[in-house]
Amino acid sequence: MSIEEKLQEIAKLIRYYSLISSTNAGSGHPTSSLSAADLMAALLFGGQFRFDVDNPDNPNNDRLIFSKGHASPLFYAQWAAAGVLKADELMSMRKFGSRLEGHPTKAFNFVEAATGSLGQGLSMGVGIAMNAKYVDKLPYNTYVLLGDSEMAEGSQWEAMQIASHYKLDNLTGILDVNRLGQRGETMYGHDLGVYENRISSFGWETIVIDGHSMHEIHAAYEKALHHRNRPIMIIARTFKGKGVSFIENKDGWHGKPVGKEELESAIKELGPVDKSIRAEIPKPEELKPEETPGVEIPIPSYDLDKPVATRKAYGNALKRIFPAYPDMVVLDAEVSNSTFSEIFKNEYPDRFFEMYIAEQNMAGTALGFSTRGKIPFVSTFAAFLTRAYDQIRMGQYSDANIKYCGSHAGVSIGEDGASQMGLEDIAMFRAILDSVVLYPSDAVSTEKLVEAMAGHKGISYIRTTRGATPILYNNDEEFHIGGSKVLKKSEDDSITVIAAGITLHEALKAYEELKKDNITIRVIDLYSIKPIDHKTLLEAAQRTKAFITVEDHFSEGGIGEAVMSAMTEMHIPVHSLAVRKMPRSGKSAELLDYEEISSSAIISKVRSLL
Amino acid sequence: MSIEEKLQEIAKLIRYYSLISSTNAGSGHPTSSLSAADLMAALLFGGQFRFDVDNPDNPNNDRLIFSKGHASPLFYAQWAAAGVLKADELMSMRKFGSRLEGHPTKAFNFVEAATGSLGQGLSMGVGIAMNAKYVDKLPYNTYVLLGDSEMAEGSQWEAMQIASHYKLDNLTGILDVNRLGQRGETMYGHDLGVYENRISSFGWETIVIDGHSMHEIHAAYEKALHHRNRPIMIIARTFKGKGVSFIENKDGWHGKPVGKEELESAIKELGPVDKSIRAEIPKPEELKPEETPGVEIPIPSYDLDKPVATRKAYGNALKRIFPAYPDMVVLDAEVSNSTFSEIFKNEYPDRFFEMYIAEQNMAGTALGFSTRGKIPFVSTFAAFLTRAYDQIRMGQYSDANIKYCGSHAGVSIGEDGASQMGLEDIAMFRAILDSVVLYPSDAVSTEKLVEAMAGHKGISYIRTTRGATPILYNNDEEFHIGGSKVLKKSEDDSITVIAAGITLHEALKAYEELKKDNITIRVIDLYSIKPIDHKTLLEAAQRTKAFITVEDHFSEGGIGEAVMSAMTEMHIPVHSLAVRKMPRSGKSAELLDYEEISSSAIISKVRSLL
Repeated sequence: MSIEEKLQEIAKLIRYYSLISSTNAGSGHPTSSLSAADLMAALLFGGQFRFDVDNPDNPNNDRLIFSKGHASPLFYAQWAAAGVLKADELMSMRKFGSRLEGHPTKAFNFVEAATGSLGQGLSMGVGIAMNAKYVDKLPYNTYVLLGDSEMAEGSQWEAMQIASHYKLDNLTGILDVNRLGQRGETMYGHDLGVYENRISSFGWETIVIDGHSMHEIHAAYEKALHHRNRPIMIIARTFKGKGVSFIENKDGWHGKPVGKEELESAIKELGPVDKSIRAEIPKPEELKPEETPGVEIPIPSYDLDKPVATRKAYGNALKRIFPAYPDMVVLDAEVSNSTFSEIFKNEYPDRFFEMYIAEQNMAGTALGFSTRGKIPFVSTFAAFLTRAYDQIRMGQYSDANIKYCGSHAGVSIGEDGASQMGLEDIAMFRAILDSVVLYPSDAVSTEKLVEAMAGHKGISYIRTTRGATPILYNNDEEFHIGGSKVLKKSEDDSITVIAAGITLHEALKAYEELKKDNITIRVIDLYSIKPIDHKTLLEAAQRTKAFITVEDHFSEGGIGEAVMSAMTEMHIPVHSLAVRKMPRSGKSAELLDYEEISSSAIISKVRSLL
Repeated sequence: MSIEEKLQEIAKLIRYYSLISSTNAGSGHPTSSLSAADLMAALLFGGQFRFDVDNPDNPNNDRLIFSKGHASPLFYAQWAAAGVLKADELMSMRKFGSRLEGHPTKAFNFVEAATGSLGQGLSMGVGIAMNAKYVDKLPYNTYVLLGDSEMAEGSQWEAMQIASHYKLDNLTGILDVNRLGQRGETMYGHDLGVYENRISSFGWETIVIDGHSMHEIHAAYEKALHHRNRPIMIIARTFKGKGVSFIENKDGWHGKPVGKEELESAIKELGPVDKSIRAEIPKPEELKPEETPGVEIPIPSYDLDKPVATRKAYGNALKRIFPAYPDMVVLDAEVSNSTFSEIFKNEYPDRFFEMYIAEQNMAGTALGFSTRGKIPFVSTFAAFLTRAYDQIRMGQYSDANIKYCGSHAGVSIGEDGASQMGLEDIAMFRAILDSVVLYPSDAVSTEKLVEAMAGHKGISYIRTTRGATPILYNNDEEFHIGGSKVLKKSEDDSITVIAAGITLHEALKAYEELKKDNITIRVIDLYSIKPIDHKTLLEAAQRTKAFITVEDHFSEGGIGEAVMSAMTEMHIPVHSLAVRKMPRSGKSAELLDYEEISSSAIISKVRSLL
């Protein structure tokens, strides 16, 4: 049997599996699977793709992302053809408890990262390919299967431009142009020239092929293996539902399985299927990624009497801790001189990746790095991380290990005005499963918390402040995820003021003012908003009669509600001071006053509660 | 004086104003203003742009969006040159209380929409141009000033593809390629060919010019006026800081004003400035937009015994209410057969705009429509609205009147799995200033709330459910923003269960089960999560000893925290049942049980509190 004939047999088996598994599930996307079945059969089993099926984590494996995650029946079917999934297990697809979910997730260990929100896979591929070329320095290749509908997502073009900018000749896109989207034809149907023009204008090499010709497909992969200096896109003309006449290239068959009664005739159309085929994937060379062992690092060394912006401490921390965490990579969206990630860049330029003003792709690229065991630190203005919320959200389904930093938080940034103020970021990151949300108030705690983030596996977020703030802690003070600090405390405290970041300094000012009138308040630095320090809050709730939370953030989903959530079973009133008026330009102090989150607002609130 | 000489004089005045206002403010972006000063002088005062300066709301005015909002000194300077701002007022720029904010906002009534988060203006322009061409049917033109750095944002390419798809020949982009981003050179520097290739591959006409040659600029605008069938991009080679040698084309001058001591020499370089020039902008023709008066509409007519999905009721409602709200337009991101906005499309195809899978541009386009007095309804899966969070966020600074609908909310969607489940959407929309967040449980309340949204000015969000749910209300029942319904109530209630959407039905099941054991609970349909019905909650808090909130959403920022925030000063424990485990595929009922938000979880919780 020629290689092409063999691949056709495997494709037939994969089609068969895609059909029966989705019919059995009663939902799913067989038609979107059938359009790409030939492309995937040829990729995995054509000899170019190298993968150690006994060890999906082998750092030398080629990587394959299904950006069109809804083609999950195909994904599972191909791995069944590779022998790593039993045909029986395919019949558990989409059922509760199965590792074969409706869209691919990390529950199945051959999935690099969860997909299903379209237009994200190419960014992940960029991260994985950048890791190969610039960090691990390994010859593995990265492949991304893309749908034509999802090319409408802007994130694709962000990924495209960065891939060519970084000359990722180890990245191959496979664009399955099956013409049909969910509710009808795509903008361009089968006009492959549109894709070719656009993609090549973005600096990619392109090959246009018939996506059902094994000969053309196989040749395209061979060419992809040997091109240099730029990424390559294989643009394949395909038919949705290919191989089964009554669903092939037909409207109204998106996301629908073949009915049980029609399944037999569908299978008959495929012709005889050899269910015993199990195809080999050649193993990669056993090479070692570049590795440096971690070493001990010094503690920070701030002068206690010199204010420093926490955003600057973030940059200092990245530089300081890198020797201890040599898997770190740092990404920034063209604002490294504002977030101060440039301090790291200047010291470790090989581990800094300029991602330009394209936050979605930055988050997706970080996820790609994370899947390869790197520790990505990702920074931009807190406000602009909202741009990547879908990518951030998808990370939670991929065991992502990503550290986000949002600078310029809150109205305290001043004159630049509302568009630049992060005021939803705490809410946004709190609503991510098992996330960590940190908000330090001084340089020392920032340094320690950046270090804690590096050591913690998961999605974590640190919020930094634009202006310089006084140093509150000694350089050897310890901070941990889930902790807090009681900064002012006495037996006579009547009210507890809970703050973080810029407002903690306002709380301390309020403390000093109130003390002049012999009113003492407890002041807590809630630097870890999630997880929250229940124990310290509980103790304060038992000793004082009310809580006042103060935050430079909108009232919903922020510090106030985090504290309320923690205190639901304690009977303590929680009064929230937060941004509630339309924010605007002005001096930092004017804006804190205007929004009633300054020391004077705290003082008034305390007095009203006495 | 020739027109070109006159425009040069005006450009000089605009440069002068840009310099003095930012130096006076002590911050801001004069260099990014100077690069585009010639482009803007020629646009506003070259004779092609038509604008009634006495009535910025005139529906016939040409429209200009500063997508590069940081060039606000230029924006204010040009309107000063038009005589609508006094030179004195320019000196209030960036000061607290001034309508001339750091980035343009609606505080100044010549601003179409707030900008400052990059890569959003072109989408707004698309909406404004679509309004002209397809809705108002007026000949006004829309211009968008773009920066080169912001072309890295994927949203630009989303806007680009939709603009050519809809043949927006009334839309002109002006790309100010000044080579320098915030922290250094852009990816392509002065290689204008890259932009030309990409933009023309996206179906636009392009003209490449010297952005400091009045002759070339003026000719380009003339050409732009007369092209047909496609949008046009003027790609201008410019220099950042043009006109002042020590800042021109220099690194390190982004976002920095000229110091007070250097201002004089900077101004001297401009040559003599005639501060008395006030330039005329020709007025547009006085035409009337197409208008239809609203008429009375019938109430819904659901069979009380036939379950209907709230997502379907959303589509039904759009169709039903359109005659009463003829300013409505409906946008969807290629899932109209899932969100059921297709019901509207099928009835009113001229008011339905397919936006394909590009949610960011969809939100920006909606904002454009909103600025022209339309009422955009925007739908996709709740999960995928996260893609547009930055655009949604910016809407709050633009007096946006946009109605978002997120379908397929929560784990109850079942087999498709986590990537398709909206679980952060309530948190996301609650954290928008003055937003409305609605979550109906049946078809009747959905219909009434869609109607309430149409009549309410502002950003509102409605969350719909995939599966069919029983009808709970009569067709003449009334619902309003800020309301709730007490569905079960007796003198003996010990616990109040508060729910909305799918979980309300679980609460009702729990009620029936508990009643068998003579336990009565109060059940509240909290269909308006924001604003919240304090009064009804307060009464329940006085009559029952604990609240249980139940929601198909992550615990942070959702219904539980909304209720806690409303009850901060009442001493009632609020127990939140919410999605807390990694969501997965399965049957709807299995997943509600797994996440402990089903009737059995409610029953256990109630029993534990008795």
